[in-house]
Amino acid sequence: MPAHSIVERCRALAAMSESPTGLLRTFLSAPMREVHQRLRQWMEAAGMTVRLDAAGNLRGVYPAATAPAPRLLLGSHVDTVPNAGAFDGVLGVVLAIALVDALGGRRLPFCVEVAAFSEEEGVRFGVPFIGSRALAGTLDADLLARRDAAGITVEQAIRVFGLNPAQLADAQLDPQTFAYIEFHIEQGPVLESLDLPLGIVTAIAGQSRLAVTFRGQANHAGTTPMHLRRDALAAASRWISVVERHARTTSGLVATVGTLEVASGAENIVPGEVRASLDVRHSDDAVRRASVAALLAAAQGIGERRGVSVDWRQHTDQSATACDPPLIDSLSRAVTAAGFPVHRMPSGAGHDAMILAPRVPVAMLFLRSPGGLSHHPDETVNAADVEAALAAGGALLADLERTHA
Amino acid sequence: MPAHSIVERCRALAAMSESPTGLLRTFLSAPMREVHQRLRQWMEAAGMTVRLDAAGNLRGVYPAATAPAPRLLLGSHVDTVPNAGAFDGVLGVVLAIALVDALGGRRLPFCVEVAAFSEEEGVRFGVPFIGSRALAGTLDADLLARRDAAGITVEQAIRVFGLNPAQLADAQLDPQTFAYIEFHIEQGPVLESLDLPLGIVTAIAGQSRLAVTFRGQANHAGTTPMHLRRDALAAASRWISVVERHARTTSGLVATVGTLEVASGAENIVPGEVRASLDVRHSDDAVRRASVAALLAAAQGIGERRGVSVDWRQHTDQSATACDPPLIDSLSRAVTAAGFPVHRMPSGAGHDAMILAPRVPVAMLFLRSPGGLSHHPDETVNAADVEAALAAGGALLADLERTHA
Repeated sequence: MPAHSIVERCRALAAMSESPTGLLRTFLSAPMREVHQRLRQWMEAAGMTVRLDAAGNLRGVYPAATAPAPRLLLGSHVDTVPNAGAFDGVLGVVLAIALVDALGGRRLPFCVEVAAFSEEEGVRFGVPFIGSRALAGTLDADLLARRDAAGITVEQAIRVFGLNPAQLADAQLDPQTFAYIEFHIEQGPVLESLDLPLGIVTAIAGQSRLAVTFRGQANHAGTTPMHLRRDALAAASRWISVVERHARTTSGLVATVGTLEVASGAENIVPGEVRASLDVRHSDDAVRRASVAALLAAAQGIGERRGVSVDWRQHTDQSATACDPPLIDSLSRAVTAAGFPVHRMPSGAGHDAMILAPRVPVAMLFLRSPGGLSHHPDETVNAADVEAALAAGGALLADLERTHA
Repeated sequence: MPAHSIVERCRALAAMSESPTGLLRTFLSAPMREVHQRLRQWMEAAGMTVRLDAAGNLRGVYPAATAPAPRLLLGSHVDTVPNAGAFDGVLGVVLAIALVDALGGRRLPFCVEVAAFSEEEGVRFGVPFIGSRALAGTLDADLLARRDAAGITVEQAIRVFGLNPAQLADAQLDPQTFAYIEFHIEQGPVLESLDLPLGIVTAIAGQSRLAVTFRGQANHAGTTPMHLRRDALAAASRWISVVERHARTTSGLVATVGTLEVASGAENIVPGEVRASLDVRHSDDAVRRASVAALLAAAQGIGERRGVSVDWRQHTDQSATACDPPLIDSLSRAVTAAGFPVHRMPSGAGHDAMILAPRVPVAMLFLRSPGGLSHHPDETVNAADVEAALAAGGALLADLERTHA
């Protein structure tokens, strides 16, 4: 299947939306049925046996040369954010089907399962990875009881879609699975800045997220001389510069203040209280945690010099996920065999591979994101890069065939 | 009249509110009638002849020893902000009546007029100084046509209160008026920080107000390395530090970023657009305008180094108002005669004196604001400072009596 057909398939699926303006497709929403129907056709045409598990993941299995056999899992998610592009998630599923299709019926020493995960973005229930959690066996009662904006629980949503929550155990990963490999757009500008089509993910960065509050004293902007101020925004601004400098000088670290709110702010009032967010990511948890500690200490130091108190609440402390070194090596040989430079990089965004890693070795291959765009209707991929990924994927299956011979 | 009676009179007027929770008294609102009734009693008891002009200013005149005679105008405003304190504006009126009362019927070589201005805060119509504009003759047709939230114009409000807009010309300043002197709480922390009861205002600072927009590129906070970002908030933060440093190192300047909004901000998105306000004040217009120019140039420089564009819109450029040097000298002699140190200071807030200055020499005496509080229900004055102001006011009348003898 040529690369442009893969791009066309992604664009066809992007027409299946629950919103009349822009692409939106949440967990078990109505357009998900159409997506399943189309994917099922493509999977079956590639020689796969297809089932929909109780978490709404569509799963096709291409049999091995002999049974029983080990199993390779490929996949990604088919839900989207609001006003989404056509490739985030979906491309990984369509590419995986194309790789199986390219086998032309030839059997490998392992079976190949392609999973289209029902949920990764966290839009409908405010919790991401519902689909891959079912494979990992971590879709627990708390999560099933979680409600969407309409008050419907995850469990009810499963029933309404015609599935049976009692059968969730059957959604778990086949115990013979030896690897999970995910193809995904980079969602960032790095490959484009290096002029490379592909990147091999070494780890999915861990994340810290915090809410940081600076409390000074609101005062009249005209009558309060500079030396008598306790300006919460001036303090927060100094700190944001420190956050940026720290991240710039710490290799592999990204740190972002993405939200900032001046409480009861007015043009003519010295800000009394500022609330800011902090997002820190690194593939080494020790580096990340040390950075968070250093940045909070810096905030307190800045505050103390200005009579501004600083409080924080950490609401996310998610560990990094290492990709499997032997799989990274396989992917590297495959990329080389396909004729492309090997570039290893961390993923700053979360992915389903993170959820499956405690159960099975994982690896990921990134495709360049033109303009670094993601979660945007203009998100795209170059057909030439899809061609490169197809070639690398084919070489990867051949590499795994040799190691499983 | 002892100082505590002046404080009690202010507190009694503070009970006259259009809001059941907290003090609010806007232009020609119902409780203004009660205020007028009470002030009229106090004015008449002090020997004044009282009228309500067509802009709702209550004006009492204490006659001179001979007629015709020059006229000294004292006063302040009796409207309030929402959730106001008891002293902002009102204290200046009550103190002025007490000064006349203290004459005990003794005639001066000039008459003394006390004006209780109907509007200074700009709450009801979004435009301040309606009362003093009538005295200055600048209450024009545009302003009369301005509507409040209920759609009522200034002109209609005047009629509804039982006044006649056709008589506005009669509200203008008597041509014999030789000075306007206003007593007002400082609304800031300077006198308290210096442990002084009184301050003599040298000028009312000019103000520049601008909206400044920083536009970079919104990006994924996980996948965008630091060196590929165009972070609008990081740029704005650097600039806010420059604003603060510039003001700290420029004598008499105050500069404030009071509002800051991250457009479509999210924890995990590098900010693409930030809108901030800038308020700059100084008693020397040249210093203020040069500062604004320097701060905008700094913003552009910061933006250029980061791929962040900077736009601005200046919506206020209000010149400084100098107080009259001979009146400042009279006030200084009076404060010294009353036994207090002379401290000269600019006013960072606007006042009715600013509106009257083009028509008549003006001066102001500030009373210490405990805690620097203003526009707040806890706003207060020390009775001892009111005593000091009464003594200084008495000495001022004696000083002016000598110069007008």
